[in-house]
Amino acid sequence: MPDARRADPTPFIHPVRIYWEDTDAGGVVFYANYLKFFERARTEWLRARGWEQEKLRQEAGVMFVVVQTAVRYRQPARLDDQLDITVALRHAAPASLHFMQQALRQGTLVAEGDIKIGCVDATTFRPRRIPAELLQETTT
Amino acid sequence: MPDARRADPTPFIHPVRIYWEDTDAGGVVFYANYLKFFERARTEWLRARGWEQEKLRQEAGVMFVVVQTAVRYRQPARLDDQLDITVALRHAAPASLHFMQQALRQGTLVAEGDIKIGCVDATTFRPRRIPAELLQETTT
Amino acid sequence: MPDARRADPTPFIHPVRIYWEDTDAGGVVFYANYLKFFERARTEWLRARGWEQEKLRQEAGVMFVVVQTAVRYRQPARLDDQLDITVALRHAAPASLHFMQQALRQGTLVAEGDIKIGCVDATTFRPRRIPAELLQETTT
Amino acid sequence: MPDARRADPTPFIHPVRIYWEDTDAGGVVFYANYLKFFERARTEWLRARGWEQEKLRQEAGVMFVVVQTAVRYRQPARLDDQLDITVALRHAAPASLHFMQQALRQGTLVAEGDIKIGCVDATTFRPRRIPAELLQETTT
Repeated sequence: MPDARRADPTPFIHPVRIYWEDTDAGGVVFYANYLKFFERARTEWLRARGWEQEKLRQEAGVMFVVVQTAVRYRQPARLDDQLDITVALRHAAPASLHFMQQALRQGTLVAEGDIKIGCVDATTFRPRRIPAELLQETTT
Repeated sequence: MPDARRADPTPFIHPVRIYWEDTDAGGVVFYANYLKFFERARTEWLRARGWEQEKLRQEAGVMFVVVQTAVRYRQPARLDDQLDITVALRHAAPASLHFMQQALRQGTLVAEGDIKIGCVDATTFRPRRIPAELLQETTT
Repeated sequence: MPDARRADPTPFIHPVRIYWEDTDAGGVVFYANYLKFFERARTEWLRARGWEQEKLRQEAGVMFVVVQTAVRYRQPARLDDQLDITVALRHAAPASLHFMQQALRQGTLVAEGDIKIGCVDATTFRPRRIPAELLQETTT
Repeated sequence: MPDARRADPTPFIHPVRIYWEDTDAGGVVFYANYLKFFERARTEWLRARGWEQEKLRQEAGVMFVVVQTAVRYRQPARLDDQLDITVALRHAAPASLHFMQQALRQGTLVAEGDIKIGCVDATTFRPRRIPAELLQETTT
């Protein structure tokens, strides 16, 4: 399936506004919160393809879990900033997805992440194949 | 100034989507997070009136701080839910604002809050009058 | 059972240290986080009485849910501060507990909360009686 | 300075208890929170060496900022779990520190992180040398 290995040509963009809850006493966005922003964007990317995670759990009995995250923090972001969070699928395997994500403020790179997701049984937490229909939609 | 004491006739609405970060092991939204949702909505309410909090700090040297919060949790909200967060100014005093806020899911009340905000000097944290221009805009 | 209605004479104390994650761009503890500190202290208060919430869910099939919170913020707390969080049971009813809690920094009141907890079925979220054994231990 | 490049022989351990605030609707610890646990442990590691971050900012005019984080999530952790968070300094450079950290539950690896910290001017956010006294204490 060579298609499953093709990178996403046009990254999906999800806007995130910075509120007090996102900042820390350094006056900037608390770095751990970029993982939240990246996840919100992946959730919307999935929803745009017709999949909600709660339904995925109920109907297919599977969940996506985050297996590995690597984030580089390039520039501080601040209160009231509007960030564009990108989602690009870099690689899709039968039971995992690998995303490249960026947080951009008016085109300037603020943070970038490399996120690996696994598909697991919602009850046992054991690896499970990503539903074929979903995999097809996410990689075309 | 009797106008300053009139309730806001039409509540402002800010939509909030529920993500994994908002939930807890009970399977529902972690109750402390409604304070975040209420604040996001107040921030957008203020922005819709032309005021950003960062500018307020830099230009007028003041900050809004939360003085008191009372929240009643009526119904659990869950992953993927879309909530409408309302903002209604109940009372405006020279150095404080009192808001009534609700979190609604398709018209059903999920949580409601009674939030008191004070205006303080951004450096000393001492009470300061709300800039007249802002007070006027927020109460008309 | 008049005993169940007596206030807790000696408040339980749980220490909380302030880290970057707890602060916001105002340079102080983000107000919503006091609800987290109060809950950590209630959890330790319960554990000191021999009850863990996960066990409570598995063995008795019940969960405690927060029904109402009222918090007054008195003084800002800052990075590296050590707070003492108190837990005093003010009132115990068959299916609910009402706590008074304070956050103190070297004896100075930083924030105080009035927290109402309900006991619910872990599956249906319907009100359930607090296990008698637990109620007895918490009120003596 | 070969000493500055030696790994920390005995890792520092900071205990972290899992509360509701740390979990998500999957019933386990929300992955982004391991970054918070790792940071609490680094803060205590620094404090054990006589340095508080707030003092560092006020006295030396510098702050530590997180530049890069890589985390692998091995096992889910749950409500009421007690985790041991380790801190091992892997490498110290003039303006940065590189830590290896683990979250262990009774000896079982739950998550592990590779965290790079930079020392910056507290006002300009430009790179600054780590105070010599601190560097010496952290690497011996």
